[in-house]
Amino acid sequence: MIDPHRFEADYLLETAQDPRRTAEAIAGEQSSGTFVPVPGETPELKQRAAARIDALELLAAVDRPSLPGARASAGDAIRQARMTLSWPIDNIGPSLPNLMATVAGNLFELNQLSGLRILDIRLPRAFADAYSGPKFGVPGTRDLTGVHERPLIGTIVKPSVGFGPAETAALTATLCEAGIDFIKDDELQSDGPGCPFDGRVRAVMDVINRDADRTGKKVMFAFNLTGDLDQMRRRHDVVLECGGTCVMAGINSVGMVGMIELARHTQLPIHAHRNGWGYLTRHPLLGWSYVAWQKLWRLAGADHMHVNGLGSKFFEDDESVVASARACLTPMFDDKPCVCLPVFSSGQTVRQAPGTYAGLGSVDLLVTAGGGIVAHPDGPAAGVAAMRQAYEAAVAGVPLDQFARDHKPLARALENRAS
Amino acid sequence: MIDPHRFEADYLLETAQDPRRTAEAIAGEQSSGTFVPVPGETPELKQRAAARIDALELLAAVDRPSLPGARASAGDAIRQARMTLSWPIDNIGPSLPNLMATVAGNLFELNQLSGLRILDIRLPRAFADAYSGPKFGVPGTRDLTGVHERPLIGTIVKPSVGFGPAETAALTATLCEAGIDFIKDDELQSDGPGCPFDGRVRAVMDVINRDADRTGKKVMFAFNLTGDLDQMRRRHDVVLECGGTCVMAGINSVGMVGMIELARHTQLPIHAHRNGWGYLTRHPLLGWSYVAWQKLWRLAGADHMHVNGLGSKFFEDDESVVASARACLTPMFDDKPCVCLPVFSSGQTVRQAPGTYAGLGSVDLLVTAGGGIVAHPDGPAAGVAAMRQAYEAAVAGVPLDQFARDHKPLARALENRAS
Repeated sequence: MIDPHRFEADYLLETAQDPRRTAEAIAGEQSSGTFVPVPGETPELKQRAAARIDALELLAAVDRPSLPGARASAGDAIRQARMTLSWPIDNIGPSLPNLMATVAGNLFELNQLSGLRILDIRLPRAFADAYSGPKFGVPGTRDLTGVHERPLIGTIVKPSVGFGPAETAALTATLCEAGIDFIKDDELQSDGPGCPFDGRVRAVMDVINRDADRTGKKVMFAFNLTGDLDQMRRRHDVVLECGGTCVMAGINSVGMVGMIELARHTQLPIHAHRNGWGYLTRHPLLGWSYVAWQKLWRLAGADHMHVNGLGSKFFEDDESVVASARACLTPMFDDKPCVCLPVFSSGQTVRQAPGTYAGLGSVDLLVTAGGGIVAHPDGPAAGVAAMRQAYEAAVAGVPLDQFARDHKPLARALENRAS
Repeated sequence: MIDPHRFEADYLLETAQDPRRTAEAIAGEQSSGTFVPVPGETPELKQRAAARIDALELLAAVDRPSLPGARASAGDAIRQARMTLSWPIDNIGPSLPNLMATVAGNLFELNQLSGLRILDIRLPRAFADAYSGPKFGVPGTRDLTGVHERPLIGTIVKPSVGFGPAETAALTATLCEAGIDFIKDDELQSDGPGCPFDGRVRAVMDVINRDADRTGKKVMFAFNLTGDLDQMRRRHDVVLECGGTCVMAGINSVGMVGMIELARHTQLPIHAHRNGWGYLTRHPLLGWSYVAWQKLWRLAGADHMHVNGLGSKFFEDDESVVASARACLTPMFDDKPCVCLPVFSSGQTVRQAPGTYAGLGSVDLLVTAGGGIVAHPDGPAAGVAAMRQAYEAAVAGVPLDQFARDHKPLARALENRAS
């Protein structure tokens, strides 16, 4: 149970110095530490605001420093440790931008360290009152799409850039006919002169609204409105006015204040894209774990968050993907869970369904597949059907090849390497 | 000369695969590439939006992959290369958030790569029209502080947190009497209940305004207003109303949209703090070079930007610090230079002055020293005088110990390890 007056962060650190003294240096740097005595400071005053080392667990020694630039003498043992720090909430108040400066400020640059990674954060209830969290999340997204008790099946408009509004709408028509639940813009496509946002929304929603009139089920299209704040607000209003049901923003492009302000304005779910995430996480002894990172953005208002996918074209291993996705479904506060929908993407096909379901333990997920759907030998409708069937098999605990015996779209997908 | 219709980015990449094919994969991922043929795509349409490889220079082979998770076979040579890509501006329009998604989106995660770092970017003139750039920069900061033809000498309120408004004002009074040019909040101090922003501004500006009435020179205090957007705007207005001359924001805390919106509102210079920068840059084969990064924030409106300091407590080497600082003073566009004031900090004393001046080749800099000023054996006034004298010596090309013979504050500082 977290102290309601403090916030906490877990780190993996690496140092050639004494780990306890290094932990103390970090705690000092990120709170009331000073390198030389300063006029006016007193022990009481420093204590009031000090960061506290709540845990420090030594891990294995390593042969060589993970990151360059650390101060070490020849022969120093390099140790890794797991550390938990906590701070008084009164240092910052319940403010996400100031939380970032405190848990992830200058500390990564300290030359006592040859590695530092933030693994998790825990926030007191005051943060739940200060930010909206996801306004739609899993239930709101299910209501808007009419998809219940199974994963949402989605795809991405490709090529990323190059299509104009008419070509995007034509592809959307094909995908609607195929029975898709969700379509998203590529993160590279927002409002360039080559494919203006308003024109794209009007052309696409014309297709989707007509399809919804016919089928009674409205395909959710996440329009990428990433841009300056006034642009994002105006673009959101265009989507809303045209009957659209989702907007998308790149969290590393707009940043925390952009996300907070967007979420204060929206009346639609926010599909949060994490492109750029690689530079924040790829080195295992630097930066952010998604388990920590995604909490910040959920609290700010993200309804859907990307987690890569099993067996993707990216560097990330499956264990990490599953941990990220499970984190998205793990409540943040007892009375305000802020759960968001995890989005699996990148090279997703029917083959990943059993592992994805087994790892997540839930059908509360959105899988977006490109080639995995449109390259089905019998066309996109069969591609969508095959993906649904793959998850039916996963939920039933039946191996795909066995389930495929009386599910032809799945059988045909399994015959084909690309789908 | 950059093509006015394209933007460019330089990268350092590392791969165990064929570097040319890897470069093509990156260019495809970040523009019109698709992994399988998609309905509606044509060669013309893909070509219109494609990223182009403008340069690819092979560098040395390396023994082991810099980052884990790359796809390689045993015995594959691992090569580094320097690559320049360019994109049509029509893909995104002159939009900073969408620029980030394009030059620094999913590419860092690709498993063809065991390293990718963005080294520089070059933007066409359209970006200069879309964003304000620094409204004050070097000349505006000099006008507000009355400091000309020499570096600005500054310091930081320490301890970072723990002081209330009265204690901060008392320290400010001491520093004003000492003849300081510039004071900044610590990046951990914004508007926590322990030191409310409004109370701090009123208490501090009361001291500074009285000092300015007496001396005719107003000390610039960078109040850290980092927070949600409405908070930042309101806090800026409080500073302005109280006669303050600078506000500070953490760029990695507020993000790009936060910075853009803050800059649209401000009537005061923005002191841009880069805390968290370590997680973006510390691995040499991952993330961002500051030469690229600082351009984004200058264009968005940063007037002052942090660059660490020579011989600092951080991991960064002096060569990198100097390159960052020189970049801040290098014009971005012929008719709109967007030059900002580089801020040297972290463990700065008189001893770094000659190297700093020699590296930068300019007195257009702000040096912030904590212990380097307040721990002077004859007190803070002597500490400020010593720092000014150290830069006078540097500009005159006279070694510090020689200059110190008839400059007592400098001589006393050199006797003392901490100052």
